[in-house]
Amino acid sequence: MVRWALGVDLGGTAVKLAVIDEEGGMLDHERHPTQVEAGPEGIVTHIASLVFSMYSRFREQIGEELFAGIGLGAPGAVDSDRGILSYPPNLPGWERYPLKSELHNVLVRDHAMYSPLILENDANIAACGEAVFGAGKSFRDFMMITLGTGVGGGIILGRKLYRGSHGTAGEIGCLAIDYSGKSVHAGIRGSVESLIGKKGIVAMGLETYHRYPREVWSEEFHGKELCELSPRTLEKAAHQGDPIAMEVWDRVGSILGVGLAGVVALMDIRKFVIGGGIAGAGDLIFSPAFEQMKQSTLPSMHDDMELVPAALGNRAGVYGAAALCFSSIV
Amino acid sequence: MVRWALGVDLGGTAVKLAVIDEEGGMLDHERHPTQVEAGPEGIVTHIASLVFSMYSRFREQIGEELFAGIGLGAPGAVDSDRGILSYPPNLPGWERYPLKSELHNVLVRDHAMYSPLILENDANIAACGEAVFGAGKSFRDFMMITLGTGVGGGIILGRKLYRGSHGTAGEIGCLAIDYSGKSVHAGIRGSVESLIGKKGIVAMGLETYHRYPREVWSEEFHGKELCELSPRTLEKAAHQGDPIAMEVWDRVGSILGVGLAGVVALMDIRKFVIGGGIAGAGDLIFSPAFEQMKQSTLPSMHDDMELVPAALGNRAGVYGAAALCFSSIV
Repeated sequence: MVRWALGVDLGGTAVKLAVIDEEGGMLDHERHPTQVEAGPEGIVTHIASLVFSMYSRFREQIGEELFAGIGLGAPGAVDSDRGILSYPPNLPGWERYPLKSELHNVLVRDHAMYSPLILENDANIAACGEAVFGAGKSFRDFMMITLGTGVGGGIILGRKLYRGSHGTAGEIGCLAIDYSGKSVHAGIRGSVESLIGKKGIVAMGLETYHRYPREVWSEEFHGKELCELSPRTLEKAAHQGDPIAMEVWDRVGSILGVGLAGVVALMDIRKFVIGGGIAGAGDLIFSPAFEQMKQSTLPSMHDDMELVPAALGNRAGVYGAAALCFSSIV
Repeated sequence: MVRWALGVDLGGTAVKLAVIDEEGGMLDHERHPTQVEAGPEGIVTHIASLVFSMYSRFREQIGEELFAGIGLGAPGAVDSDRGILSYPPNLPGWERYPLKSELHNVLVRDHAMYSPLILENDANIAACGEAVFGAGKSFRDFMMITLGTGVGGGIILGRKLYRGSHGTAGEIGCLAIDYSGKSVHAGIRGSVESLIGKKGIVAMGLETYHRYPREVWSEEFHGKELCELSPRTLEKAAHQGDPIAMEVWDRVGSILGVGLAGVVALMDIRKFVIGGGIAGAGDLIFSPAFEQMKQSTLPSMHDDMELVPAALGNRAGVYGAAALCFSSIV
């Protein structure tokens, strides 16, 4: 008999839910807009009703006794022991909010649902998802990096989520690798996110194209004054063979590689799973990242280095949230 | 009854030995030149005779039954399970050497001594020493940084030495924080060691002084064309109030702070113990390092940040080596 769980991934734009079984089967999934303007209480009430409705459908089908619980991922700093979410980006007005107990209370009050509930940071949960069901299955120690609007990370050590002393470990986006440089994000000069977060990539793209005469620009950007330059269009241009776009991705990859090298040096982690929308650029980033990771570490650190694409795409969150309920990863 | 152990710290210039009891008392200590030219076998034979002679004196005094063993620290990558030392810097010709079994065999062969023997990397051992007997006693998680000719580090997580997947964790000297800069050490551009290892500090000192007319240089450097500029003389000049030397230390501290911020972001470690010869500059480094560590991290990471000087000086190694024998730190 295979157990099942509900994975919930709360983001600034969408709430994703899925029913996952212990063998990695995704039995159902849904996506709803996050009711940001409803504030914490409104969102919690909304999530509770979505959870209960999904749970009800499968309770009869699979059976209550095999239900392992609800895993919930949320952005921001999470104190998972106390179930408190602090300052989630993209969820204004939350500050410090006891998300776990509030959701539990509403599930009990509105739906008489007493299931076990686990709260964890979203980047950590994506790492758990890849560890249990995805590209990190065979790795004992690895770091999952999510390249998207921001740059996030989650760390698995000895098949356990590594949270650090305050639950904020894995913030590779904050790692300063160009402390004397120009780019700044969230107050941190030269951070990985300032350089290769979405804004950083766009800035790098603009700067690179403007170094070349517009006659040689990819037709992707002809006559558009580069106002449509984005990671997506840069990716398209590079796949069409535009050498300028390829140069941009090569730099993005190298910068990622410098950041990964820092993880190798400090933590002696040598396996990396790379996901998020930007990772769609694939080998355009992966090859230079791997080369740079070697260049920025000692030869004695090169054994067993591996860089692999994430396997679960934007479902890593719900997979990981569910995984918390039946694995020993937390 | 208090147990005792022998701590041995093998370095490129000296072999240090000490008899330490479980309560942190140092009952005896010795320092001998490392017989580098004798090669691995010669050094092992030498260490074995030093160990046996020191052991013999205390065996009768304290008693054999309270002897916990021999801890040995060595530079380079250490596979402590297999007892293999790889490519120790400053010990040419060693390559990969089974130091633990060789020392064990010689102790048995020449001295009929069968005591337990533990081998560990020297930077890790200094961290263990500070953790068990020094400035890290009250910290659950911390990083020990050694600022000297090079920049090394050792990490304690949950009161256990964190080695990483290959025993090379904690190499903060290799962390690239200025990847597009000019300075390079051991092939790594912009590494912490390239910037604030001894050579980096001297280069920064020369560069800074040459920006000022020599009439305003500290008398420490009058008429000497800066050929005597070293961390030691820079420290002296700064303590005499020379603003140029103080500017240099301020930069050294800031750069250290950027590196520490990287550890905070990735590992969520917020306690740092700083030792090594350069750390003698004290607050000249500590204040700017602490300020910069805050500037290069998110405000949500600032709680509980602490930067303290090491307590055991250049004896951290022998203390830590002995500590391996009676603590649960490894």
